[in-house]
Amino acid sequence: MNFTSVQNIDSLQEWVKQALKIKKNPLKNKKLGKNKTLGMLFFNPSLRTRLSTQKAALNLGMNVMVMNFTNEGWTLEFEDGAIMNSGASEHIKEAAAVISQYCDIIAIRAFAGLKDKEKDNAETVLAGFIKYASVPIVNMEGCTGHPLQSLADAITMEEHKTEHKPKVVLTWAPHPRALPQAVPNSFVEMMQKQENMDFVITHPEGYELNPEITKDSKIEYDQDKAFENADFIYAKNWSNYTDYGKITNSDPNWTVSADKMKLTNNAKFMHCLPVRRNMIVTDEVIDSENSIVIEQANNRTYSAQLVLQKILKDAK
Amino acid sequence: MNFTSVQNIDSLQEWVKQALKIKKNPLKNKKLGKNKTLGMLFFNPSLRTRLSTQKAALNLGMNVMVMNFTNEGWTLEFEDGAIMNSGASEHIKEAAAVISQYCDIIAIRAFAGLKDKEKDNAETVLAGFIKYASVPIVNMEGCTGHPLQSLADAITMEEHKTEHKPKVVLTWAPHPRALPQAVPNSFVEMMQKQENMDFVITHPEGYELNPEITKDSKIEYDQDKAFENADFIYAKNWSNYTDYGKITNSDPNWTVSADKMKLTNNAKFMHCLPVRRNMIVTDEVIDSENSIVIEQANNRTYSAQLVLQKILKDAK
Amino acid sequence: MNFTSVQNIDSLQEWVKQALKIKKNPLKNKKLGKNKTLGMLFFNPSLRTRLSTQKAALNLGMNVMVMNFTNEGWTLEFEDGAIMNSGASEHIKEAAAVISQYCDIIAIRAFAGLKDKEKDNAETVLAGFIKYASVPIVNMEGCTGHPLQSLADAITMEEHKTEHKPKVVLTWAPHPRALPQAVPNSFVEMMQKQENMDFVITHPEGYELNPEITKDSKIEYDQDKAFENADFIYAKNWSNYTDYGKITNSDPNWTVSADKMKLTNNAKFMHCLPVRRNMIVTDEVIDSENSIVIEQANNRTYSAQLVLQKILKDAK
Repeated sequence: MNFTSVQNIDSLQEWVKQALKIKKNPLKNKKLGKNKTLGMLFFNPSLRTRLSTQKAALNLGMNVMVMNFTNEGWTLEFEDGAIMNSGASEHIKEAAAVISQYCDIIAIRAFAGLKDKEKDNAETVLAGFIKYASVPIVNMEGCTGHPLQSLADAITMEEHKTEHKPKVVLTWAPHPRALPQAVPNSFVEMMQKQENMDFVITHPEGYELNPEITKDSKIEYDQDKAFENADFIYAKNWSNYTDYGKITNSDPNWTVSADKMKLTNNAKFMHCLPVRRNMIVTDEVIDSENSIVIEQANNRTYSAQLVLQKILKDAK
Repeated sequence: MNFTSVQNIDSLQEWVKQALKIKKNPLKNKKLGKNKTLGMLFFNPSLRTRLSTQKAALNLGMNVMVMNFTNEGWTLEFEDGAIMNSGASEHIKEAAAVISQYCDIIAIRAFAGLKDKEKDNAETVLAGFIKYASVPIVNMEGCTGHPLQSLADAITMEEHKTEHKPKVVLTWAPHPRALPQAVPNSFVEMMQKQENMDFVITHPEGYELNPEITKDSKIEYDQDKAFENADFIYAKNWSNYTDYGKITNSDPNWTVSADKMKLTNNAKFMHCLPVRRNMIVTDEVIDSENSIVIEQANNRTYSAQLVLQKILKDAK
Repeated sequence: MNFTSVQNIDSLQEWVKQALKIKKNPLKNKKLGKNKTLGMLFFNPSLRTRLSTQKAALNLGMNVMVMNFTNEGWTLEFEDGAIMNSGASEHIKEAAAVISQYCDIIAIRAFAGLKDKEKDNAETVLAGFIKYASVPIVNMEGCTGHPLQSLADAITMEEHKTEHKPKVVLTWAPHPRALPQAVPNSFVEMMQKQENMDFVITHPEGYELNPEITKDSKIEYDQDKAFENADFIYAKNWSNYTDYGKITNSDPNWTVSADKMKLTNNAKFMHCLPVRRNMIVTDEVIDSENSIVIEQANNRTYSAQLVLQKILKDAK
C-alpha cells in the first residue's frame, strides 16, 4: 500500500474519524511500529512535514532515518537507458531498490521544478521510487500533490465543523516567488471527497489549476463574491499552470484581509504554512481567533500517523 | 520553565551538586523522558552542543529530532508587521508555534551576527522562540550567552576544587576570526554566582565585555599580574564589544603559554572548545596534565541533562 | 577493538558465517547495544553506508547520532604543532577526544582527496581519530579502504557460492570522474583472505593498484581473457594510482557488457554501488538475473552489524 495521492483515501469521512481517534490517544499503537524503520528522504526543505512525520513514526514506536538527499547522498538519474557520463552518480533503479533493503516504509519530498510541466506532472522522483522500491511509499509533497497536508486539513475542518452545510473557499493569494500547485491540487481533490460541503475555488482569471484535477469544482473569479457566507477560507498561492510556473499576477487586492473576512460567515482562516504574512494574509487575520493554521500544523502529526498506521497494519 | 541564561540557575551550588549526582548514574532517570520529544534547532555549526545535548536527552529516554534550520527548513522573518515579500518564507510566530506542536522542549543555537549590537543584544531568534513557542526553550548558545557551557564549567571546577579559596581567571586570548561574547558573558555571570572564589577578568584595554554583565567583577589589564597565584585559567577569545564585532587586537603575547602558566598556582587550564592551538593556548599547555578541557566537554552532557531533567520534572 | 581494514578480520570464513547467522535473526542481539551510542561522522556523501550502518546499530538496540562534519561541525586541523590562524577551527586532538565522551563507538567516512598520494595513504582523518579517540573506531570508507563493503561482498559471494572452486574477477571499468581506490583495495585484500577461490584483477596497463596491496594477486591486462570461465565479475572504476588521481583511460571497451558476460561461466555481476549505468556496466547486465548488486547492498547491514556486535562484545 502506497500513500501518494488523496485518491488513495478510500473513505475520507472514515479516515478523518480514525485520525481523530489517534489524536485522542497517540501512543496507543506504540507497539505497532516496533523494529520497523521509516526512511524519510528530502529533496527539498521541510519543517512541518519533517517534524510531524517523524513525530508520527515515533508515536508508533518506529525507528526513523532522515536523509537530505541533495547534500548527503548522490545525485540521481531517472531516465531509462541513460549513459551516465555526466552529473548523476546513481540511477533511481538502484537507489530505490537499495533503500528498500533498509526501510520498511520510504517517505519522499520532491517538489515541482516548475520549468517543465510534463516532467513535473510525471512526478519523476516519486514515480521512480514507486516503480523501483519494494516497500510502501509515502508522499511528503510531490510535484502535483501534498495529500498528508490535505488529510490534516480535513481533520481540522471536522474539528471546526458548522451545524449547517459549510461553504469552503480555496482562494489564491499573491506571493513573491513561483510556487507549485501541489497543495491546492490536493486540497481540491480532498474537497471533492467531502460529502456535505459547498466548495468554491477563487483565483484571478488565467490562474486555473490543472482542469483534470479541478474537474467540475466551482470556480469564481470574483474573490469578494466567493467569500460571501464562507465558513472556511483556505488561502494559498500557486504559480500559473497554463503559463507554466510563471508569476503573471501579484495583485495585492487578493491578499486575505480583515475586510475580505467580513464578507464571510465569520469564517475560519486556513493555510498550510509556511505563509508570507501581509502577502497571502494580513497580520490581523492570521493573528485573529478565527485563524486555525497552528491546529492544521498540529494535525499533520495525526494525518501522518494514520497513514503510517494503515501501512503497518496492511503489511502484517 | 525556560533555560536561556545563567540567571535561570537559582542556586549554582545546588545545581552543580545535582549534576554530579547525574554523572554518577546517568541512566537513573531513563523513564522520565519517555515519549517526550526534544527538538534541537541549529542556526549555526555545533559539535559538543549537538552531541552532548542529544546524549543527555537519550540518557533521559527522550526522543530527539535534530534540524539544521539554515539548510533544511525555511528562512525566518522576525520582524512584527513585516510585509514578507523578499527572502524570508516563514514568520517566527508560526515557526515557533508549529514546532511546539511536535516537541516538548525546543533547544536553539543562534549565534551573534556581530554586525548589529542592538540586534544581537535583543537575541532575536531566541527571544522569538521564547515569545511564540508554547513549550520550554533551552539556549544552546545564543548571541549573548551560553549557559549550558558555563554550567558545565562550574561542574568541572567543582571536580577540581582546591582546599583553599581558589582564584579563577578569565583571560582573553587572540584569535584570527571575530568571535561572539556569549561564552565569556555566561562564564562571568556564572562566576558571579560562585560563593567562595576569587574572580579576575583579564584582557587588553578596550576589550571590555558588556559592563551590564561584568558589573563589579574585577578587571586586570596586566595578564601576568592576573595569572599570579591563579588556580584556574579560563581562556577565551572574544571580539571587541565597544567597537562591536571588530578585531582590534591580535597580540600573541596574550596567548596562554607555559611561561604564563608558571606564574599561576599550578592552575588548571580551561577552554570551552573548539580552540585554536598556538593562538589561544600553546600545545604545551593544552596537552599538559593541567588541561581539563576534555573533562569540560564531558560535563556538557550532565549540564544539559540536569537542565532537561528539571524541565521535564517541572512539566509534570 | 577498531575496525578499519580488511586486515582486522581474523578469519574471513568465520566472520561470513557469523554475519549470515545475524542475517537470519537480525534482532536477536537487540539488548546488546542498549544505552550504547554510535556516532556516525561523515566527511563525504553516503547512501548505503549511512542507512545500513544506522540500521545495523538500531538492530542492536543502539542509539545513533549522525553528524555531517563538513557543514554541521567545525573544520578540523590534523597537523601536529600547527599554528591555527587560518581555516581550521578545531584540532583533531580535541575533536576525537571530545566525541569519545559522548559515543561508545565512532564510525567515520573520509574519502581520498586524490591530490596528494602520501596524504591519502596516511589516512589523515581516520588515523587522527584512531590516535586521539578513546573509543573504538569503525571505517565507513577511508582514503584507501572500505572494509565494511568488502565484508558484505564476501557474505554475498558465500550466498552464491558455486560447487566448484569459483573464479572471481575484479575488473576496472570506465567512469567520468576520478574515483578513489578504496573499494578495489579492500576487495583485493578480502580476496587474498579467501581460501578456495581463484582471483584475477583486470585493468588497462598503467592502472595498477598499490602493489603493497595487490602483492602477488594475479593481474591480467586482457579483460576478455580474464572473464573466461569467471563465476563472479566485480566491476569497479578507480583512478590511476601511479599517475595519482588522474583519469588516463576512458575506453568504453572496458564497460561490462552482455557480450563480455558471455565469456564467463554464467557469472554473477557485482558492484558496490552507486554505479554509472552504461559506463561501468550496461543496463542489460545490471538488470539481468545474474546481477546481485542489490543483495550486496542488503548485506551491508549485516557486515556492519557483525562489526558493531564484535566491538560491543569486546568492550564487555
